[in-house]
Amino acid sequence: MDQTAQPRIAVIGLGSMGYGMALSLRRRGFPVTGCDVSAEAMARFAADGGAVAPTPRDAATGADVLVVVVVNAAQTEAVLLGPDGALSAMAPGGVVLACATMAPDAVRRLAQAVRATGRDYLDTPISGGAVRAAAGELTIMGSGAPETFARLKPVLDAMAAKVYDLGAEPGIGAAFKMVNQLLAGVHIAAACEAMTFARALGLDLARVYEVITASAGNSWMFENRVPHILEGDYSPRSAVNIFTKDLGIVADMGRGLNFPTPVAATALQMFLMTAAAGFGRDDDAAVARMLAGLAGLDLPVKEA
Amino acid sequence: MDQTAQPRIAVIGLGSMGYGMALSLRRRGFPVTGCDVSAEAMARFAADGGAVAPTPRDAATGADVLVVVVVNAAQTEAVLLGPDGALSAMAPGGVVLACATMAPDAVRRLAQAVRATGRDYLDTPISGGAVRAAAGELTIMGSGAPETFARLKPVLDAMAAKVYDLGAEPGIGAAFKMVNQLLAGVHIAAACEAMTFARALGLDLARVYEVITASAGNSWMFENRVPHILEGDYSPRSAVNIFTKDLGIVADMGRGLNFPTPVAATALQMFLMTAAAGFGRDDDAAVARMLAGLAGLDLPVKEA
Repeated sequence: MDQTAQPRIAVIGLGSMGYGMALSLRRRGFPVTGCDVSAEAMARFAADGGAVAPTPRDAATGADVLVVVVVNAAQTEAVLLGPDGALSAMAPGGVVLACATMAPDAVRRLAQAVRATGRDYLDTPISGGAVRAAAGELTIMGSGAPETFARLKPVLDAMAAKVYDLGAEPGIGAAFKMVNQLLAGVHIAAACEAMTFARALGLDLARVYEVITASAGNSWMFENRVPHILEGDYSPRSAVNIFTKDLGIVADMGRGLNFPTPVAATALQMFLMTAAAGFGRDDDAAVARMLAGLAGLDLPVKEA
Repeated sequence: MDQTAQPRIAVIGLGSMGYGMALSLRRRGFPVTGCDVSAEAMARFAADGGAVAPTPRDAATGADVLVVVVVNAAQTEAVLLGPDGALSAMAPGGVVLACATMAPDAVRRLAQAVRATGRDYLDTPISGGAVRAAAGELTIMGSGAPETFARLKPVLDAMAAKVYDLGAEPGIGAAFKMVNQLLAGVHIAAACEAMTFARALGLDLARVYEVITASAGNSWMFENRVPHILEGDYSPRSAVNIFTKDLGIVADMGRGLNFPTPVAATALQMFLMTAAAGFGRDDDAAVARMLAGLAGLDLPVKEA
């Protein structure tokens, strides 16, 4: 890519994370073309002044950088290599930034396919949520060729407050992300279990939140998700189905390694129970609603 | 008790928490008599200038306030009501502050026995660890009669930076503490599972600590306990056996309520596996050592 001009960027996936990332890139002056399967997301991005294209291939045509912010490995593969796939339309020497949470093996397979075309691949899973995505303040758990990392630094810095360079090979970033997801998923399930247990004990839940967030039982997820329970608001900031997927990847990885992860495996079952109860698309704090329903307990309900 | 003079205080249990609490009380000018089953702890307290007595009854004779900082409900009952028990030796109108982690039912039973003698009982479980105990900066999750709470405020404030008054009846504080212990236990087990999983993936563990503590997978316990794993130092700050006990109480409470706590139940099994492997008296981060041993992984080992 041209070392002097701003790289042309395509962002595929304008969901809660990708949308904010595309905005953050535009704010730093990068030319960005967005693409999403949702016509509504595309119309919104266009209304904000962004360029849009109807397919990943169209968005990526001539792009120096392709940011793929979809849900999983299968969608990332479809964006890159499927019908109307983006990869072969990119500028020679272009770089793919793959942000979906994926197993390290899937990352290595995709990176190989990208590199076979003479382009490069950075493993760049993200953490931080929609608010920080829109502010350009994500955390990126990155890995890949050091020279590519260095060259893309302005692009990464536009999206993230913390860019970790965790190793020279794609897959290492993904492994760090899976360790984070193991903990995050367990902490959400534990927060929901603890709050409904507190309800079963007849405790004042707002007071429980106050005491726990000032005590050794606190977690980032407890602090972030329990307000959804207190407000009875299960509109999805991050959905139950994300954690059936991510803890499912942890479970697969554990089986592959012959390594037991009993706590994460139990948390996965809690998310599966919640999805089975019909709450899969709701906020992941709905694990509390599932448990309360099971036990006949009332939790706060948001006023309509 | 005399409203003008400093109350005479007996502290039963001079372990990692009680010792610091007794020191904090003395620092604020309260006359304190200490008692412990360990002659070594008694000698140390005496060498620090504290008064000691050979039995709970001797220490409590004429005391206005009895602070009981032992491991569980059975020990608290023995201190109060056993041979050489403290309760009947206390000044009329004295107050028992019971700090052990106990089931709310056990607290209610003990409070009734104390109140039957015309004395009062505050349910005052503590959180924060030995360092904060010595600094007088614990968290107390208290409950009991409001007038007793108000009268004892100078004593509570000498030991704690945060004194929560959570309700008018003993047992409420204990219930809050058990919610905290459910979360704390799960978070320790999850931290150990995640770090050994990271080791199985070949990741740089110091880097994992750095990334996770800056990410959504963080917890108070992850931040506090993982350094023990990185240093290979399993000398007990808080022992595995504490959590087989505390998560055991959570399990008992859940059965009593017909309320399922699958994540906490799994964490309890992890602590039991660790205790069964011979690490019960080691630091609770030894759950990582148990998992690493099982899977043939090496973790850092402290230099002798």
